[in-house]
Formats: sequence, C-alpha cells, structure tokens
Amino acid sequence: MSSGISELDQMALDIEEARRQTTFPVELMTYYLHQGKQNTEKQREFQRILLKEPLFEQATYTFLSRDERLYRSTNAAKRLLELSNEHGWNDEDREDFQNRIGTGNPLTLHFQAFVPVINTIGTPEQSRKWIGAVKRHAVLGCYAQTELAHGSNVLALKTTATFDRITDEFVINTPDLTAAKWLIGGLGVACTHAVVQAQLILAGKSRGPHLFIVPIRSIEDHKPMKGVTVGDIGPKAYGGFATVDNGYAMFDNVRIPRENMLMRFSHVTREGLYIPPIHDKLSYGSMVRIRVDIVKSGGWQLAKAVIIAIRYCTIRRQFGGQPASPSSGNKATLETQVMSYSGVQHRLLPLLSLAYGCIVTGQDLARDYGELMDGLAKGETENLPQLHVSSCALKVWCTRRGADGIEECRKALGGHGYSIFSGIADIFAIFVPANTYEGDNYVLSQQVGRYILKQLQGVIKNGKVPSPTVSYLETLLDGTDNPFVFGGPDASVLNHDVLLTLFGRRAARLAVDLAKQLESGRPWSDVNMECWNICLAHAEYAVLKQMISRSALLESSSEYAPLANVIRQLTNLYALSTICETSTATFLSTLTIAPADLGAIQAHYRATLANIAPNAIGLTDAFDFTDFELNSALGVKNGRAYEALWAAVQNNPINTEEGRQKFQNAVKKITNVNDNIEFSKTSKL
Amino acid sequence: MSSGISELDQMALDIEEARRQTTFPVELMTYYLHQGKQNTEKQREFQRILLKEPLFEQATYTFLSRDERLYRSTNAAKRLLELSNEHGWNDEDREDFQNRIGTGNPLTLHFQAFVPVINTIGTPEQSRKWIGAVKRHAVLGCYAQTELAHGSNVLALKTTATFDRITDEFVINTPDLTAAKWLIGGLGVACTHAVVQAQLILAGKSRGPHLFIVPIRSIEDHKPMKGVTVGDIGPKAYGGFATVDNGYAMFDNVRIPRENMLMRFSHVTREGLYIPPIHDKLSYGSMVRIRVDIVKSGGWQLAKAVIIAIRYCTIRRQFGGQPASPSSGNKATLETQVMSYSGVQHRLLPLLSLAYGCIVTGQDLARDYGELMDGLAKGETENLPQLHVSSCALKVWCTRRGADGIEECRKALGGHGYSIFSGIADIFAIFVPANTYEGDNYVLSQQVGRYILKQLQGVIKNGKVPSPTVSYLETLLDGTDNPFVFGGPDASVLNHDVLLTLFGRRAARLAVDLAKQLESGRPWSDVNMECWNICLAHAEYAVLKQMISRSALLESSSEYAPLANVIRQLTNLYALSTICETSTATFLSTLTIAPADLGAIQAHYRATLANIAPNAIGLTDAFDFTDFELNSALGVKNGRAYEALWAAVQNNPINTEEGRQKFQNAVKKITNVNDNIEFSKTSKL
Repeated sequence: MSSGISELDQMALDIEEARRQTTFPVELMTYYLHQGKQNTEKQREFQRILLKEPLFEQATYTFLSRDERLYRSTNAAKRLLELSNEHGWNDEDREDFQNRIGTGNPLTLHFQAFVPVINTIGTPEQSRKWIGAVKRHAVLGCYAQTELAHGSNVLALKTTATFDRITDEFVINTPDLTAAKWLIGGLGVACTHAVVQAQLILAGKSRGPHLFIVPIRSIEDHKPMKGVTVGDIGPKAYGGFATVDNGYAMFDNVRIPRENMLMRFSHVTREGLYIPPIHDKLSYGSMVRIRVDIVKSGGWQLAKAVIIAIRYCTIRRQFGGQPASPSSGNKATLETQVMSYSGVQHRLLPLLSLAYGCIVTGQDLARDYGELMDGLAKGETENLPQLHVSSCALKVWCTRRGADGIEECRKALGGHGYSIFSGIADIFAIFVPANTYEGDNYVLSQQVGRYILKQLQGVIKNGKVPSPTVSYLETLLDGTDNPFVFGGPDASVLNHDVLLTLFGRRAARLAVDLAKQLESGRPWSDVNMECWNICLAHAEYAVLKQMISRSALLESSSEYAPLANVIRQLTNLYALSTICETSTATFLSTLTIAPADLGAIQAHYRATLANIAPNAIGLTDAFDFTDFELNSALGVKNGRAYEALWAAVQNNPINTEEGRQKFQNAVKKITNVNDNIEFSKTSKL
Repeated sequence: MSSGISELDQMALDIEEARRQTTFPVELMTYYLHQGKQNTEKQREFQRILLKEPLFEQATYTFLSRDERLYRSTNAAKRLLELSNEHGWNDEDREDFQNRIGTGNPLTLHFQAFVPVINTIGTPEQSRKWIGAVKRHAVLGCYAQTELAHGSNVLALKTTATFDRITDEFVINTPDLTAAKWLIGGLGVACTHAVVQAQLILAGKSRGPHLFIVPIRSIEDHKPMKGVTVGDIGPKAYGGFATVDNGYAMFDNVRIPRENMLMRFSHVTREGLYIPPIHDKLSYGSMVRIRVDIVKSGGWQLAKAVIIAIRYCTIRRQFGGQPASPSSGNKATLETQVMSYSGVQHRLLPLLSLAYGCIVTGQDLARDYGELMDGLAKGETENLPQLHVSSCALKVWCTRRGADGIEECRKALGGHGYSIFSGIADIFAIFVPANTYEGDNYVLSQQVGRYILKQLQGVIKNGKVPSPTVSYLETLLDGTDNPFVFGGPDASVLNHDVLLTLFGRRAARLAVDLAKQLESGRPWSDVNMECWNICLAHAEYAVLKQMISRSALLESSSEYAPLANVIRQLTNLYALSTICETSTATFLSTLTIAPADLGAIQAHYRATLANIAPNAIGLTDAFDFTDFELNSALGVKNGRAYEALWAAVQNNPINTEEGRQKFQNAVKKITNVNDNIEFSKTSKL
C-alpha cells in the first residue's frame, strides 16, 4: 500500500473521492426521482421509522428456515398495522412504507389485491360491508384466481360456483386436484376470506368465471372452515418470497350466501337469473394497474442492485498495482479501482441508465393510468387498448431487462457477489417472478404483437393515423427501407430526433416483417418469437420517447434545470447501449443501421460511458436508499464493505459457541477414529 | 376434458405418447453420452445405492435453515466415506458417486482440491506422508488461496510465510482483515489442515506466493489451533452451496515446520536459501484441469434443467381447448400441449442441443487434457497455451450460456417454476457461481483475446500457420470480407462445411477488427467487451467443430450409427440457433452473414426445430437421470407432476399440526381483537 494508508481506510477514501466527482446536485436529483421535495421528506420519515424496527431488518432473516421466516414476517405484519395506527397512515402511506421494506408479508396481498378487487368488482354496498370489516381487522383476505393446472388461461378455470336456488346459496367446489387454488399470496397461513374466481353455474349452464367471497378460516380459532383444505405451498425459487404465505385451497361443496358474489358488473337474482355486465372496462383497467405498479417498482429494484455494484466496484481494487521496490526506491502503487475498467463501466452504467429510464417511464405510465381511469369513469374507453398494450410491453421489458440486469450486477461483484450479504441475490429472487406473474411475458408479448399488427394494417391499408404510442408506424411512409444515412451535423446519433427515428424505424420494420411472414402463410401460433422482438422494440421505443421528453422538459424547468445535462447523458447512454449491445441484432437485421455504421456509433457509446462515469456514485446516491434498506454489506454508503461483511458473518449461528460445538462433534466422528490421534502426533501432522 | 380421462391421467398419457414419438434408440444414446455401456452400468449402480440414502435426498433439505443443512451434509460426508469403504470405491468411483448427488459437502474440496494440490505441488515424500494421513481420515483439508480483498490477482495476496532460520519454521501471518482467507470450501467447519497460499518471505525479501500446509483444527477436539481464527462465511446467493462450509481464516503468527512448504517445484533450504522452480508447467496444467471439469459437468447441469422443462411442457396444456357444448353436441377438446407451441420449442430445444454440445465437447476436452498431461510429463509443452485458452473460452461459454439457459428453463415452467419443487432454481444456484470462480469470466476472456490476437499477428505479419484451435484465422486468406454467398446446393446452410466456415469467419473477423481498433490507438484496457465477443465466438466455433466431428464419426460407427441422424440434427440446431438467436449481432456486424440472407437461415432454423421436436422427450430421457437425482416434482418421469407437487407440499412443516397451531396463534393476535368475533357473527362475514 502507498503512503501508509490501510487498505480498509483507502476504500472509504475512494468512495468519498468518487462522490466528489459528481457534477450535479444529488439532493435535487433525489427530489426529482421522488417527484418532489415533499414526497422525499415523507419517504425519509418512513426510513427513520424503519431503522427502529428490527422485525423488518432483512439481514437477520437469512439464517432462519423458511417457516421461521414466515413466522417472523407474520409478526412483522402485525407490527405494520400497529405502526400504521400509531402514525395515522392512510392506505397510500402504508403502501409506501411497505414498499420500502423490500419483502412482503402475509398481509401484503390483503391490501394489494383483496381490498382493490372488492372495491372494483363489488357493489358499493358490498364494498362498505367488507372494507368496513377490513378496517377493524376482522377480515384478512386474499385473491384466489390461479389453479394448480390453470394459470394464464382464465377461461379454463375449473372451480365451480353452483347456484342453489332453494337455499339462495352458491356451492363452491373443487372438482379435482388440478383445480386446487394455488400460489395465492395470503392464503397459506393468514387469510380469513378469499375472493375466489370460479365458473358460475346457473341451472346447469356455465356463465364463465366470476368472483365470490369465500370464508377460509374461522376468525375465532383461525382453523380452516368446514370443507376447506388449505395450506402453504412451500419454499420458492432462490429463497424468494419466503416471508409470504403463498398457499393452496380446495373446496368440498362449501356453501356461501348469494350476496357473496361480487356483483357490480354482472349479477345473479334471487331467482337465479343471470344479468350480464353492461360494460366492464373498469375491471379491465384494474389489470392494467398491477402492471403499471410492476414497471414503477421495477426501476427501484434494479436501482438497488446498481447502487451495490457501483459502490463496491468503486472501492474494490484489482490488478495494476506494484509492490514497493526497496532496491530501486520505488514506492508501492495501488491496484486499479475496478470501476475504472471500461469493461466494468460497460456492464454497469447502461444498467444505471436503465434504472433511471424505468423509474421515469413508470411514473409517466402511472400518470397516464390515472387519466385513463378518470376517463373510464366518464365512459371514455378509446385510450384503454393502447395503454393496456403499453403496460404489457413495458412490464415485459422491465422485468426481463431488470432481472437480467440485477444478476449482471451480482456477477460484477466477483466472488463476494455469491455471498448472501452482497444483498443482490435477494433482490433478484424477489424480482424475477414478475417475468411470469400478472401475465407471463411470452403470452403478453403476443398481445402486444397483435395490437401493433392491427394498427399497422390500419396505416397501410386504410391510411389511418396510428394511435400515439405507435406513431412510429408512420415512419414507414418515408418511402425507404434502407439504413439510416448519417449525413450532416444534425444527423449525429446523439441527436434525440435521430435516435427516436432509429428506434421507431426498427419497431416499425419488425412489424412489417411479421406482417409479411403471416401473409406468406406462417400461422399466428408460429410467430411467438417475432412478437417477442416487436414487444421489446416497442417498449424500448416507449422508454426512449419518455426519457427524451423528460430531458427536453428539464432544459426549461425552473426547479430541475441543473439536472438537464446528466439526464440527457443518461438518455444517450440508454439509447446507445440498446443499439450497441442489448438489441444490436434487430437494428442490423431490419437494416435500420448499416453494419458499416456500427463502429462509429460504438465510438459515441464509449464516449458517453466515459462522460457519465464520474457521476456514477452521485447518480446512485441520488436514489436515496439507506444501508438498512439496501441490506448489503458490499454496498454500504461509507465504502467500508469488508468491515460490514465481517460483522455480518459474525452473526452466523454456525460461528457461535453452540454452533461450533455441534460441528466439532460431528466432524470428530470422521477424523477421530481408530488410532488417528496417536498417528497424528507421531506423524507430526 | 374429452372422453372422460381425468386431467391427471391425461398428463401421464401425454408423456408416454411423446416417448413413443422417439425415432432413435434411447438406451444406445445413454451409452453414447456415458461413453460406453460399461460406464452406464456403473452409473446405474451408483443410482441404485443413492436411492437408499436419505441423507443425500435433496428434497428434504429445502425446509431446513442453512446451519441445519450444513449439519446434515456433514453427516452425509461421513456416510459417503462409509459407502466408499463398504463398496471398495477408488477415488474416481467416489467422485462419480459424489457428482451424482448434485450438492457438495464439507469434504468435497478435501478430495477435489486439497489432495490434488499436494499430489501436484508436493514432493513425492510430502505426497506419501499427507495422502497416507488422508487415507485413514486423520486429516481433512482445504485449499486456501482467495483472500477477502484479493481474488483474481494472485500476486497481490497479502498473507505472509516468513522463514525463521533459527527455529527452521515458517511463520504464517495475516497482516489485516483484507488478507483473511475467504470463501474457502471445507474451511468453515470441517478441515484440520489447509494448504495456504502465502507470500514467501526469506531474509526480508518476498519471493511471491507459495503453498504451505497449515494446521487449522486439532484432530483431538477439533477446536481451532492457537493463533487461528476460523469460521463459516454464511449463506450464499440463491441458497446455493448451503451444504458446503465455505469459510474464512486469519493467522496470528502461526508457526509450521519448514517441511510443510510444498516443495516439488521451488524449495527453501535449511539455510533459508530459495531454489526457484526449473519448470512449473505441471502446476499450470492443474489449473486447466479444473476448468475442463467445469465444462464436463456444465452440460449435465444444463441437461437436468432441460429435462425438467421439456417434460413439464409436454404434460402441461394451456389455451386452445374448447369446453363441451351440449347444445351443439360438440365434445370438449383438450387444451394444447405447451411443448407444441413453436415459441416454447424455440426457447427449449436449442438449450437441449447446447447440453449435448457441452457434454461431448467436455469429453473431448478432457481427452485432450489427458494427452497434454502425458506430454507435459515428457517435457512437451507446445500444446499447453492453446489448450489453456480453449479451456478458458469453453469455461466462459458454458457457464454463461448454461446459467442463462437454466434460468430460461425455469421461466418456461410458468408460475410453478417459482416453486422450489420445480428443482431448477437449485440447479441454477449451484451452477451460476462457476461464472466467477476458477477465473472470473471477464478476466478469462481477456486471456483468450490476447492469445488469439497473438496468433493473428503471426498469420498476418509472418505468414505463420496458426495453432489448430484457431485454424479459422486462415479463412482471412480467402481475400474477401464480404458476406458469405449462399450459392449452389452445396452452399446450403445445413452443410457442415459451410456452417463451420461461417463460425470461423465470424471469429476471425472479430479478431481482425480488434487488431484494427488497437492499431488505431485504443488501449488494451479499453477492449474488454471486444475480447468478450471474441471469446464467445471462439468457443462457439470450437463446440461446433466438435459436434460436427462427432456427427461425422457416428456415420461410420459400428456401434452408434443409429444415432448419427439425430446428432446431426442437434448439431444443425446448435449452429442455426447460435446464428439466428444467441449471436446474431456479431454474425451481422462482421458482415459474415448479410442481413438479407437472415430470413432464409431462420426458415432453416424453424424447420430444424420442427424436425427435432418429436425427439425431445427421447433426447431428455437419454441423459438417464432418476427422479431422485432430478429432485423435481414438475419433471417426474411418469408425467404425474401435480401429484408429485402435492406430495412435496405436504412435507412443508408449516402444514403440520404443530406448524398450523403456531401460525393460528400468531394471526389470531391480528384479527381476534376488540369485539371482532361478535362483529363477524352479526355481520355474517
């Protein structure tokens, strides 16, 4: 080491030095990311409360078995309700606080699914009754749709709700194991009631899936109700969602009163007559909401992983140093900071831009969703299809790129990335299932493809103006399918109009190509992968459009103008890394970019990386997570990663006196046999 | 459901029907994959033994905490030694058996690292002494190289071994926390001794890292030796390696006799004189061996995930069915088998070809390694560099593509892929760290790039013939850098010569491009990503070459000719999926393939997928894993996945009477407050 500074102290100096490189006001960026100073202060108040709540500390969960983790999170759920009460939080406050915790509990879906579905699909009267009970904690609920053998295809659900006209009841029944409700959050140990999706049977005729509130456990002793078989489905992949009681249930002719059917849109009369829904667009809208939430939170999950990776790579040094050479009088030189390697910047900085892009896109999508719902309430439905499709495409994009990005961050940590105390594995474990839930990504991408194709037909065949989210389809009208010509100074690839044109052309050409393939006779069932590419291209265009729009707005913002420069750089980085790395194949295959031009674009990409690098620590600090929330020894803010790792390891029960003795005895049974002790002594082992 | 067959029975019928589609002899393929009937029978004997050993059953580990898992695997290690004794296994037998188990134990690296390093770096006398002690289990060892802050850069290790001439001892010392040995398998709870890599200090002068046997724990009471601080580093990412005691150790001036330095190559005399190694190529060779082993086993790990995914997608049906319509008299039709969707085939079948390609390449690499070591023993070192580079490139390729592929298999299972009982998450958890260990992939890829560049300079500047593994560099001499021209019938992309030309050209052109970039002034430290692409292109070429060679050999094989057709198809699938999906960007960017030709190649790719699809189940069965080994409810051989999943879930401690009571009491504290019971009754909730 040079100049007598210990390696540990050097790490703390390195991160402070990196922090000093920042060229923009970090606190202002935090306000921007949190949509204002007021909300930032609210979030920080939550952070202060969280710090004092050991039940929410993730670090200590890691040594427990699954059932111990779930037991603890059940108590944490209770504590959450107490805190909510103490602080007088409304629903949004409680959700915000919960979101800061990182892991769910057995009541998470009670609030996120059971309550909203009753509010949306229940009549005002049903809503009053059940939400009243929710408010006094007399009811804990879950939303039971998926069955063991029936997931994406809701129409194929087999649970039945048969109306018994004599008793004015529905009989809920599970015909066989394949129809067991499965994977349902909150069902495993917690809920007293479930909203169950079941085929409505009236006079022997099926009317398709409808929703019914079914008692699951007695509020008195919390034992399963008669006819209900219920339990927890067990541990999940990568240890994810260990603190949530995803469960199963089977119903053996369980009777519920007719009024337990949620009847806002369709309803069943006392006589057993079925009144179909007049319009159910509002219920359609609520499916969009969940995907909007995934996009909104996806950016923050990726952000956590990126913070950890960039901080650790800033303080970690590897290769390039020289030991002191007393003979020549040369002093020792430090090894090189890992973050300064271009290869590492190339792996991590595009993910940083992705996190920013995902966060702002999620915010704008949430705003659009709010406007949509206001419109729907007034009967305006014309924006629903395109927002549905955008939410699908962005959900697919953000969960796929996000999960891949989180794991790439983990790999960038080197060997310590494999320690649970890196914190990144747990982020991946919780985030990756979003690729599958709320619409499997591959299934959703087909819906996106279908919509874009339909819009394309309108443009080509009828000269219709496409809906705003697919306005890029109009680029087809420029009458060429040659590569983009990078001509004069305005045509630089750093020009936002040029970038957006490239992204739009690629998306449009993929759609045209798919249309040609279908015309040439390939069946729809055969073009899943083409839809996948179109879906990602659509999302990548949408994100770029959003980032460019944000970037332009900042230039003239009275409040946030000092951020304009760095946000523009992040926008460029997002665009160029998408062209040069993530999605090169489709930019080239659609002839949007000529292979011969790629080299020049790559040079711009490298220059952009180098421009952003000095702001890496500032940009990660701006996300404003506490060490408690990050739950990462390697990503501690002060750079003292190894001391934090050492401290974490000391909590390992295997290293306690009791743990040691247990293992000493076990291993002694292997070595301490025959005359081995004597042998060891004489052989001087 | 049609014709009264239950959905559960239909699943069993579906997989049997798929099995009947197989067009090649599955048993013969098993022999081929296991390199002969004799070895197949040996493996099956291991499988029969394994079935009777509950300590090795992975399914029951999942409910335990980390320390309980490790405790159990410590006992499993003891049992492994007993079995080895009972059955008279030699080292290779025991390794083969261990490899079938899937997870390691605290003794795994005792055999895989401690013993080999003593045999390789120790003198014959040292080897006799220590291996004698190993044989009677008086010694359990580990190999301690990595330090908390020093990994890839071995020269920067800080642990010191200072020779004390007066006492004829080395003093092993850890100067500070950053030099703590870390991540070392077997060190956490098990080992009595460690081979420690430490800077050899003689008369105040450092001689670089050398190896020393250091006692860690007393064989008598198994407590740490004086001056040794030792423990387990805690849980690992995704729950991986929970059964292995990766540990840490710090040494406070621990004294060991001089003879504990491993002195085969360099040695220290009684007077403290340093005798440097004359040649240490043999020790170099042993680093290659570990990477060869990773490639060898990587294919089998991916195979497990592919088996599970293909089996489950064969029995899972989703969309496309019709319920019975009594009014029109139409019978119900079944939903569509997920495996029959082209999108699913596209996601899974290339991974099947990857598993086959990786297995045969690993076998051939192991053969080459054996020949190399024979040569080295005779002083023939000329093949070392190219085999070193091939082992690096193939390790990078197989761990990256393998880990990504395993996770893709998990996603292809839909929602149930997130259950631990899918089995795939645990395969990923154990496999993914191989991206980082034994040479971080990004670091290795630079070594590969450097070697290929050097060979390229030889070809271009001196007209030298490149070494056989990079013979593709000669394709540069064809005097063109235009896209390949698909001309007459011989130039079909299914022609193996054409395919190999394409793969070789791409690799060569990437290398040429890198050389140009460096000539134009970009520094070596800036071209990590270019090296990454070259490394993968080199590996993809090597695998294709191997598969094509196997394919050709089979045509004329007296024993295995009936497999020739299907292996040729797998070879085509591997090549075409690499061009059309995995690596499209570099085939296009290097102008190896013109964008306009891609559509035609994609059509061949789709046709190849469709050709292989009927053999999917046969090709997965041929890997010959038992249900016990796969440890997957979804991947059971008889297709009864849901019944297996149900059975697995019933072992969940949360669902036992004791578990239920614990949670009932916890949740009651939330709901059973104030007058809620009374309220619930009057409100009829």
